[in-house]
Amino acid sequence: MQERLDTLTAWLNEKNIEVAFLNSTENVYYFSSFYTDPHERLMGIFVFKQEQPLFVLPAMEVNQLKDAGWQYEIIGYSDHEDPWKLIQASLESRKLATAEAVSLEKEVLSYSRSEAFLSLFPDAKVVSAEDKLNEMRVVKNDNEIAIIRKATKMADFGVQVGIDALTEGITEMEVLAKIEFELKKKGIREMSFSTMVLFGEKSGDPHGNPGDRQLKAGDMVLFDLGVVLEGYCSDITRTVAYKSVTEKQKEIYNTVLKAQLASLEASKPGARIGDLDKAARDVITETGYGDYFPHRIGHGMGINVHEFPSMSHLNDGILKEGMVYTIEPGIYLPGVGGVRIEDDVLITKDGFETLTKFPKELQIVE
Amino acid sequence: MQERLDTLTAWLNEKNIEVAFLNSTENVYYFSSFYTDPHERLMGIFVFKQEQPLFVLPAMEVNQLKDAGWQYEIIGYSDHEDPWKLIQASLESRKLATAEAVSLEKEVLSYSRSEAFLSLFPDAKVVSAEDKLNEMRVVKNDNEIAIIRKATKMADFGVQVGIDALTEGITEMEVLAKIEFELKKKGIREMSFSTMVLFGEKSGDPHGNPGDRQLKAGDMVLFDLGVVLEGYCSDITRTVAYKSVTEKQKEIYNTVLKAQLASLEASKPGARIGDLDKAARDVITETGYGDYFPHRIGHGMGINVHEFPSMSHLNDGILKEGMVYTIEPGIYLPGVGGVRIEDDVLITKDGFETLTKFPKELQIVE
Repeated sequence: MQERLDTLTAWLNEKNIEVAFLNSTENVYYFSSFYTDPHERLMGIFVFKQEQPLFVLPAMEVNQLKDAGWQYEIIGYSDHEDPWKLIQASLESRKLATAEAVSLEKEVLSYSRSEAFLSLFPDAKVVSAEDKLNEMRVVKNDNEIAIIRKATKMADFGVQVGIDALTEGITEMEVLAKIEFELKKKGIREMSFSTMVLFGEKSGDPHGNPGDRQLKAGDMVLFDLGVVLEGYCSDITRTVAYKSVTEKQKEIYNTVLKAQLASLEASKPGARIGDLDKAARDVITETGYGDYFPHRIGHGMGINVHEFPSMSHLNDGILKEGMVYTIEPGIYLPGVGGVRIEDDVLITKDGFETLTKFPKELQIVE
Repeated sequence: MQERLDTLTAWLNEKNIEVAFLNSTENVYYFSSFYTDPHERLMGIFVFKQEQPLFVLPAMEVNQLKDAGWQYEIIGYSDHEDPWKLIQASLESRKLATAEAVSLEKEVLSYSRSEAFLSLFPDAKVVSAEDKLNEMRVVKNDNEIAIIRKATKMADFGVQVGIDALTEGITEMEVLAKIEFELKKKGIREMSFSTMVLFGEKSGDPHGNPGDRQLKAGDMVLFDLGVVLEGYCSDITRTVAYKSVTEKQKEIYNTVLKAQLASLEASKPGARIGDLDKAARDVITETGYGDYFPHRIGHGMGINVHEFPSMSHLNDGILKEGMVYTIEPGIYLPGVGGVRIEDDVLITKDGFETLTKFPKELQIVE
């Protein structure tokens, strides 16, 4: 954690930014090992160019923060106190220069908190903290990769539980409940997003919702799920056929699989990110389904299930060793059904490794 | 929904605000009946003083928005398009005056989205949309109350499942898994927050986390849980004793119960909100546990599990018929254990009704 604070402090000095305010659960965790969601209550870290950092959070969470190892000043406030007044007093006790620039999380800090923060630094230029944080967080270290590996194993397990639960007449919600039950028994407190279990024509809607649709022979079954484990996410999608499969379904499935493999093959250090989308999209377009693949190929993954970079064909960014992201092409035929295949991918020294390991050949579940 | 849009439009005219931009899942739902979380993708409604409203969202969700009944213009954008450019073009097709003021959700709109929005209205004054939205959303109509009633029934059920699951040696996470499994089988897709099941000394930390702590005789067991049902939340806390109870535990329990009942009794139209906190706090302080009740008495509840108003002793707001909120005093003794009792409360014409109905007398589970 100290190394991360030092890296950010060096950046503040380089850019002559007096202070950065980090307020999201994810960035606070990244810099403090303290993971909590204080809901509407203020929580955040102030990292200074020249002074020691400051943590502000609800008083009742102070002990947990100390347990997580925070060594610097803490402001713990009660519900009847205005934390910004306490922050102001703490800042006044520091030797801060008149700030020419300050930094905040432009993508997540609320307008009202930005008002409160910026009122402490009138006339300061606002610099996005995300530019630096993305650069730091996009490359995962060995410890982060080890945690993500565990999270992806749980995702694989979740798909297996889902497939094992498939029986004629079961509903999407019943299958979903079984998946999450088994994961919770293994200690998973939080899914990384709302689990998707979609049958038949419902799989044909890329943002459909699980409900009481009952399983019947001939359905495609789409699972999209992931877990949060020690603050890191996983995210897997698999699609299987139930009892039988038509030629059309087979064609869609194998097209998506071919597209996914093409995109994986393009994954290596130095590759242009947009080319991963293009590799998959070309396969799907050539087969005539280009109009039925309406989303980007994937997204970075780590403390957030969706994080930097956004893997669209427009992204000119370059892959680096240690990056972790999803590859998830899909074809969705309205009224018929859909197929999506998604892996979590790690960029290695000279190529890639898929961290999700669940088999991808078309499976017909009996 | 039209009535709500009309109310907002009337406010815009009254305040001479050219346009309000609503971007949160909750407010979008409130004005459109469309409930979705587009994650990092932009979604929102522009409501104008003089023109018809505009909805912007990812293209792949457009059909679901139409199914929800949206009658006005829709901008559906693909991942490779900049939605703000499409918004700008749409605004230019409208006859908008030079805006003197615009409105946005100060508490939730991100700094970067506020930048994008405000760049379309240079020099406009920024008015908080929350002031008006809180006033609208704080009083629930019959339809909303009917949904919240269903959500609170599910919360009662969840507590019963949890109590039924208690056996020597079971872990907090195993009990939690059973609760959520049974709720999902009843169609609940989402809990309104991370379910809490805390045993013994862990219940003594107001923000402890469930883990592999095993249940043993003499533990207090604290359940805090709620569901999201048709977009509305519930939130209940109950504490029981397992197999035996000490005099100290009994004293804490009965003090919290007395405090909770005192706060409930203060609940009626015209009452000052801060007095509800005071009624409970006085009971707890008189018994000598004032230092161990570190949080406010409760919070408004509806589409958000925590919403306006914040029920602290400082709140001079007045209760009105149709308001729904929580009353949840607690005493937490570090190392020993804690007790919290929480109900969801509806203000009726001349008093209150607790929507959560689970019994509150001290229960010793065998």
